[in-house]
Amino acid sequence: MFSVMCLLTLSLSAQREQRSRIVSDTIFSRVLNTERAYTVYLPKSFNADKARKYPILYLLHGMTDTNSSWVEKGKMKPVIDRLIDRGEIDELIVVTPDAGGSDVNRQQNGYFDMQEWEYEKFFYTEFLPYIEETYRVIGDKQHRAIAGLSMGGGGSASYGQRHPDMFCAVYAMSAWFEAGKPDAERASADPNNKVNKLMKAAYENGCIRYVDEADDNRKKQLRSVAWYVDCGDDDFLFDLNIRFYQSMRRAGIPCQLRVKDGGHDWEYWHQALYDCLPFVNRYFNKVR
Amino acid sequence: MFSVMCLLTLSLSAQREQRSRIVSDTIFSRVLNTERAYTVYLPKSFNADKARKYPILYLLHGMTDTNSSWVEKGKMKPVIDRLIDRGEIDELIVVTPDAGGSDVNRQQNGYFDMQEWEYEKFFYTEFLPYIEETYRVIGDKQHRAIAGLSMGGGGSASYGQRHPDMFCAVYAMSAWFEAGKPDAERASADPNNKVNKLMKAAYENGCIRYVDEADDNRKKQLRSVAWYVDCGDDDFLFDLNIRFYQSMRRAGIPCQLRVKDGGHDWEYWHQALYDCLPFVNRYFNKVR
Amino acid sequence: MFSVMCLLTLSLSAQREQRSRIVSDTIFSRVLNTERAYTVYLPKSFNADKARKYPILYLLHGMTDTNSSWVEKGKMKPVIDRLIDRGEIDELIVVTPDAGGSDVNRQQNGYFDMQEWEYEKFFYTEFLPYIEETYRVIGDKQHRAIAGLSMGGGGSASYGQRHPDMFCAVYAMSAWFEAGKPDAERASADPNNKVNKLMKAAYENGCIRYVDEADDNRKKQLRSVAWYVDCGDDDFLFDLNIRFYQSMRRAGIPCQLRVKDGGHDWEYWHQALYDCLPFVNRYFNKVR
Amino acid sequence: MFSVMCLLTLSLSAQREQRSRIVSDTIFSRVLNTERAYTVYLPKSFNADKARKYPILYLLHGMTDTNSSWVEKGKMKPVIDRLIDRGEIDELIVVTPDAGGSDVNRQQNGYFDMQEWEYEKFFYTEFLPYIEETYRVIGDKQHRAIAGLSMGGGGSASYGQRHPDMFCAVYAMSAWFEAGKPDAERASADPNNKVNKLMKAAYENGCIRYVDEADDNRKKQLRSVAWYVDCGDDDFLFDLNIRFYQSMRRAGIPCQLRVKDGGHDWEYWHQALYDCLPFVNRYFNKVR
Repeated sequence: MFSVMCLLTLSLSAQREQRSRIVSDTIFSRVLNTERAYTVYLPKSFNADKARKYPILYLLHGMTDTNSSWVEKGKMKPVIDRLIDRGEIDELIVVTPDAGGSDVNRQQNGYFDMQEWEYEKFFYTEFLPYIEETYRVIGDKQHRAIAGLSMGGGGSASYGQRHPDMFCAVYAMSAWFEAGKPDAERASADPNNKVNKLMKAAYENGCIRYVDEADDNRKKQLRSVAWYVDCGDDDFLFDLNIRFYQSMRRAGIPCQLRVKDGGHDWEYWHQALYDCLPFVNRYFNKVR
Repeated sequence: MFSVMCLLTLSLSAQREQRSRIVSDTIFSRVLNTERAYTVYLPKSFNADKARKYPILYLLHGMTDTNSSWVEKGKMKPVIDRLIDRGEIDELIVVTPDAGGSDVNRQQNGYFDMQEWEYEKFFYTEFLPYIEETYRVIGDKQHRAIAGLSMGGGGSASYGQRHPDMFCAVYAMSAWFEAGKPDAERASADPNNKVNKLMKAAYENGCIRYVDEADDNRKKQLRSVAWYVDCGDDDFLFDLNIRFYQSMRRAGIPCQLRVKDGGHDWEYWHQALYDCLPFVNRYFNKVR
Repeated sequence: MFSVMCLLTLSLSAQREQRSRIVSDTIFSRVLNTERAYTVYLPKSFNADKARKYPILYLLHGMTDTNSSWVEKGKMKPVIDRLIDRGEIDELIVVTPDAGGSDVNRQQNGYFDMQEWEYEKFFYTEFLPYIEETYRVIGDKQHRAIAGLSMGGGGSASYGQRHPDMFCAVYAMSAWFEAGKPDAERASADPNNKVNKLMKAAYENGCIRYVDEADDNRKKQLRSVAWYVDCGDDDFLFDLNIRFYQSMRRAGIPCQLRVKDGGHDWEYWHQALYDCLPFVNRYFNKVR
Repeated sequence: MFSVMCLLTLSLSAQREQRSRIVSDTIFSRVLNTERAYTVYLPKSFNADKARKYPILYLLHGMTDTNSSWVEKGKMKPVIDRLIDRGEIDELIVVTPDAGGSDVNRQQNGYFDMQEWEYEKFFYTEFLPYIEETYRVIGDKQHRAIAGLSMGGGGSASYGQRHPDMFCAVYAMSAWFEAGKPDAERASADPNNKVNKLMKAAYENGCIRYVDEADDNRKKQLRSVAWYVDCGDDDFLFDLNIRFYQSMRRAGIPCQLRVKDGGHDWEYWHQALYDCLPFVNRYFNKVR
């Protein structure tokens, strides 16, 4: 018993010396004119090896969540730790920005530019440069991937589609790939309504249409990214996920698809990390 | 070294006492007016316990295969043995009938009745009763399941659809669920062509249309069977598999779907046994 | 977008009608002369079907945890829900009693009887009968299993060993199977020390010695229970787990062993539920 | 139906253009004074891209097998193909040399040097250089790994131990890590007996003792290799595998261990390839 306790104590203190960390912090955005939070995973060696640079995964949250959801609900830390410890993935940075939330007072939401809320401009001109400078990110396409769930799954796919020079891999979970065409009457009746704005942006950035309308040049660009679609057989977005995959296949763009048991929930996404992280890791540092 | 060899010898002789077996045999069919082969898996206790009766899985082969393919190409025996040994499934009988083959001289093929080749009549009035009598099968719906790959996947689904009182579970792998409507001109030009006949039968027994056209009574019957669709993301029958699943869901008939990595090949089906056998086993003996 | 939200709302309200629940409550123990907490999982049909009885899994916590740890840290609810939803396990009750905790003021700990703290007497004469009456548990060996982690892994194994007529299956995770012989001098110097008491009890109820000393009759009893040992390759209790397994094998008592990647942490135990629940479920209702 | 057949035909012809191959060939060994067979897997791009060089895995067979066993019994080709196709591993060469067999007339066996049969000398001075020249192998430690089953598991571990400058990773399956000390009397009574020679060599090259006797310098060398031990819970070599792992851990040499369900059989080793290949692939090209 004493030896058990000693072992426990020793192993805890050994871990304290050098261990991975979750940090939540904020950045002030001039584009959005507000403070924006983010949550970042820093690997074991981060503090000790001040010269080392890392690959990065942007891991996007869904519609009713925030930057801390992947840690708190998705329990991402022990999964990343374990995959690194067993050598299945290399040390990396994982960061989740805040793209809104369910709070009625938070009037903006989503990963796209909208009227008076240029989130995408913020992401590419402020957030990404700041993160990659601050946390010693290698900072090229071959060491940058993007993933996300639901609204963030659509966001990650759309970012990957429109910035194929920036991301080597996209992993979309239970993704909301596209919105239907907004009702013009309803939209004009309440143009400042947040949901109307989000719907309009999600329609305009529809990922399926983006593939269906791709010419040869765009297809070639899309082939420079590694794609993975992961969706449960009970997910209410199942049909959208299948349509995206079928469009990709028709366009001749290699894409993995997995349909596992489950619905639109955190247990599904927690498990999805076990496939997502090794997948993006395989493309880090690989010349395609 | 000697001890290693002794252990090897001992463990082999221990296994010899009571072990599972693969038997290939034939049955003469009056319906088809020919000898038909089949291959059957008999569990460890089969010979020792002469009074024991077993549940049964009918495991159908694909278009260019025969009754022995699941053993020779699918390597089904070690999978069944292992799942029984670890207690994940109960002892059962697994049988594969011969539904044709690639030989050009073998003029008939498939699981459906055709002109001058009433395979389905043979299956239900001769083959199934003979097997269940000969190999001590329990012989009711709650101890009888059906599965198959490709053409046999479609066959298993169609048998399950049209005999929901006979099978408690259907597991369709990479299934050819339905053929397109045959070209009338081509069909009439060569009415005795084997492929034309098979195509006609596969069209007439289309599994997707069977669900889409189901009234409430048929839906209720279909809900009395447990359904599982398993298809690789690179399978050329992928779209058909998705359509079947979507029809089932629209009709409100519970159905599992898994899309794993892979195509239309034996390695996929070998692995599928690890999901298929525990699935059907769960429904043996269960009152729904 | 609106349809997405509608679907979300509808699916949430549908779930509200009949859903599984986690309940935390207390029972007053005359044996221990104190209130003891417990946490119980009740399946979907529990409220609707007032006549139905269920199998039960006693799921024990570890040394520094309490009755709520399996829910809060182990995230057991979504795993149980999903396994039931996909039909992999049947509806069941899962209950975690409180066996102490890290609080220095809580002077007692563990699953064994100690001087002035007859926990085992409480468990078998008060807790188990109360739970099985209150939550409509079937209440025989063939519908009762026990599992646990670390100290609770040892607890579950010891309970299964000494009550083989009560449990059909034992699943021990990262189990503390045995304590070394206590130092007599230290123990007598501080006889009321909680850790000393616990160590003495853990030594006296050592699971490995219990197997090593088993005569034919005890072995026969132990064979009437299904055993499973699950321990990570980085677990500090690894050697103990191997020793237990080797003793079981030497004694000719069938036992499964799995060593997966990982250590002594909640992510390991969360994943272990995916093996534990189907394992115990297979033995519910099975005559051995 | 026609379209199904067309698709089948098209996909087959597409594969013909560029596909992976299994080649069996021989090399004449001056060291052994005999022709020795080998079997090699060549990836899809091998013929088309004549300038490309590849990493290599030496995959050793067991005591009663030959160079073709991994293809014929282990069904390694579809596993390698699939892992490459899904991008989980990079294209590589896999080769199995012939280390003897069950034939009574084949008087030599195993991976070690024996009197009048310097197999290891053959392997390092003839076989490896020939293979790496002939099949465009990159040819440094960071692109060379070794794995094997049973006698070949011990062989791969021993080769990795005594040539840590040559292999970046070792994956030992169901390995025969060590033989007991030979009985001197028996050995001297029949010094030319093949089994006696093999036993002596297996004792002298015992992998567990090699770790236990390691000084700091040797430990440092062993840490430059990535180690993985994979053994079924029903394997008759289970205890040896555990002892090797425990020795490695005591010596502070990182080593993965997995114990899955199963015994000493080809279904176990077929499945082990799904872990082995991604494991060694992760260490190709990685500076440690």
